[in-house]
Amino acid sequence: VNVFERVTVIGVGLIGGSLGMAIRARGLAREVVGVTRIESSIPLALARRAIDRGTADPVAGVRGADLVVLATPPDQVVSLVQRVRLNLRTEAVVTDVASVKAEIVRAASRLLPAEGGPVFVGGHPMAGNEGQGITAADPDLFEQTAYLLTPTPRTPQRAVDRLAELARALDAVPLVMTPEEHDDSVAMVSHLPYLMAAALMNAAGRAGPVAGPAFLGATRVAGSPVALWAQICRLNREPIQNALRAFREELARLEAAIEDGGRLDGLLEAARQARLQLGAASREKGSK
Amino acid sequence: VNVFERVTVIGVGLIGGSLGMAIRARGLAREVVGVTRIESSIPLALARRAIDRGTADPVAGVRGADLVVLATPPDQVVSLVQRVRLNLRTEAVVTDVASVKAEIVRAASRLLPAEGGPVFVGGHPMAGNEGQGITAADPDLFEQTAYLLTPTPRTPQRAVDRLAELARALDAVPLVMTPEEHDDSVAMVSHLPYLMAAALMNAAGRAGPVAGPAFLGATRVAGSPVALWAQICRLNREPIQNALRAFREELARLEAAIEDGGRLDGLLEAARQARLQLGAASREKGSK
Repeated sequence: VNVFERVTVIGVGLIGGSLGMAIRARGLAREVVGVTRIESSIPLALARRAIDRGTADPVAGVRGADLVVLATPPDQVVSLVQRVRLNLRTEAVVTDVASVKAEIVRAASRLLPAEGGPVFVGGHPMAGNEGQGITAADPDLFEQTAYLLTPTPRTPQRAVDRLAELARALDAVPLVMTPEEHDDSVAMVSHLPYLMAAALMNAAGRAGPVAGPAFLGATRVAGSPVALWAQICRLNREPIQNALRAFREELARLEAAIEDGGRLDGLLEAARQARLQLGAASREKGSK
Repeated sequence: VNVFERVTVIGVGLIGGSLGMAIRARGLAREVVGVTRIESSIPLALARRAIDRGTADPVAGVRGADLVVLATPPDQVVSLVQRVRLNLRTEAVVTDVASVKAEIVRAASRLLPAEGGPVFVGGHPMAGNEGQGITAADPDLFEQTAYLLTPTPRTPQRAVDRLAELARALDAVPLVMTPEEHDDSVAMVSHLPYLMAAALMNAAGRAGPVAGPAFLGATRVAGSPVALWAQICRLNREPIQNALRAFREELARLEAAIEDGGRLDGLLEAARQARLQLGAASREKGSK
């Protein structure tokens, strides 16, 4: 990979911290600058080798960076682009890590219109673990995971290529799609499963003691912090509503088949085949 | 644990084979007899040290056994009790491993009315892995899992105690409940999550490539063989329908909150608290 001169990571939590650690451990940048509002995170991020230096000021932090990663909660991405945009290098690539893309990409691209200036490319590394914050950061977090990139028709190819190259250098798999495709897919494979898990927990009530592996697996994500998911539900409302509708229809189909006894095996077998097609590679990822 | 003289395991697959291996490895019986219709399973079960000897004939197999474990698919339990009952020792305890209890316990208790004769006690070890058959059997399968026992008011306490003692000797946690409580709880924590996973796979269609850990975790069980689940849906229809209804209502509540923007955080936080209360012990079990 072409080494970056200076990578600035704004938000040094689980994703930002892991990215800093991975970039530094693999020598993908001459310098990693961390920006965080939480003062106590700077010594922690330094100790974990996630950053070379830290600052609380995003405007100072992005100075001289050829890559800026906004690793904040989704609802802060656009206001941060707004805040730092006049201090970006002309050739800077700016990306984020939010699991919602269309709304963010639309607003950020308007702020950085890319005519020879800094470029915004929406990004979403589909990585994570059960932890939170810099203490849970892990330089191998991105290995074997999908790194989604969501350019618009006006995004310079060179900027997309640099991020794809970075993803590969992290042993992730870059996947390029439109922001809308992203939001539909992620609503289905991430946001909907979270809501299912939450609904299942709320329905199960006191059934807890009997919980087996299937239940624990299906509900694990419901234990993650609410604030981020509530934001996601607001920012990706329509694709989530579509996914909920499609899921509800499939569940109703199973319910009807259980009621009248017919077609059930066929519906379950279709699901089984679809799951098996996700294949061995995915099963490995799932075990992380 | 009081050692059994002879344990007969009918059906030497994942659960029956694991039970045989665990009982032999821990010295909980003088002899383990395996009964299987699949001739080729006998040498395999012998080689894996799951049984001391094997036979294809259940009637011969149960002779002299003080514990008989029916580890077959749920829909064969009652007909096997019928078939072997006149050849059971007077003091024999008969149990099964099916994940559906009320219907089986009702029929089996009628066949073994327990007035000084052999006794049926419904059992359900909530253990498993992603494999199938004797090749996937594992003597440690039951460690840290719940072993559900479902006596009726007429079941002699002594028989329940012996099975609870066996469960503890396998490092499982025996939990005693009525067959109806069992079916309601297991519909919620096992059968419903399976149906959710199947519906999600059917809804997700081609979203597969983007699948992240949450999706893989939520759908893993949808890849398991259909025949057993279809049986379960027939045998436990009403509790499953109740669980589906409760889940549907909770999902609708989330959907409405996403639509109108209110109450969402509260609903998600309730789910989070419920999930966190499942606690560290459950999280460990889930990682198996």
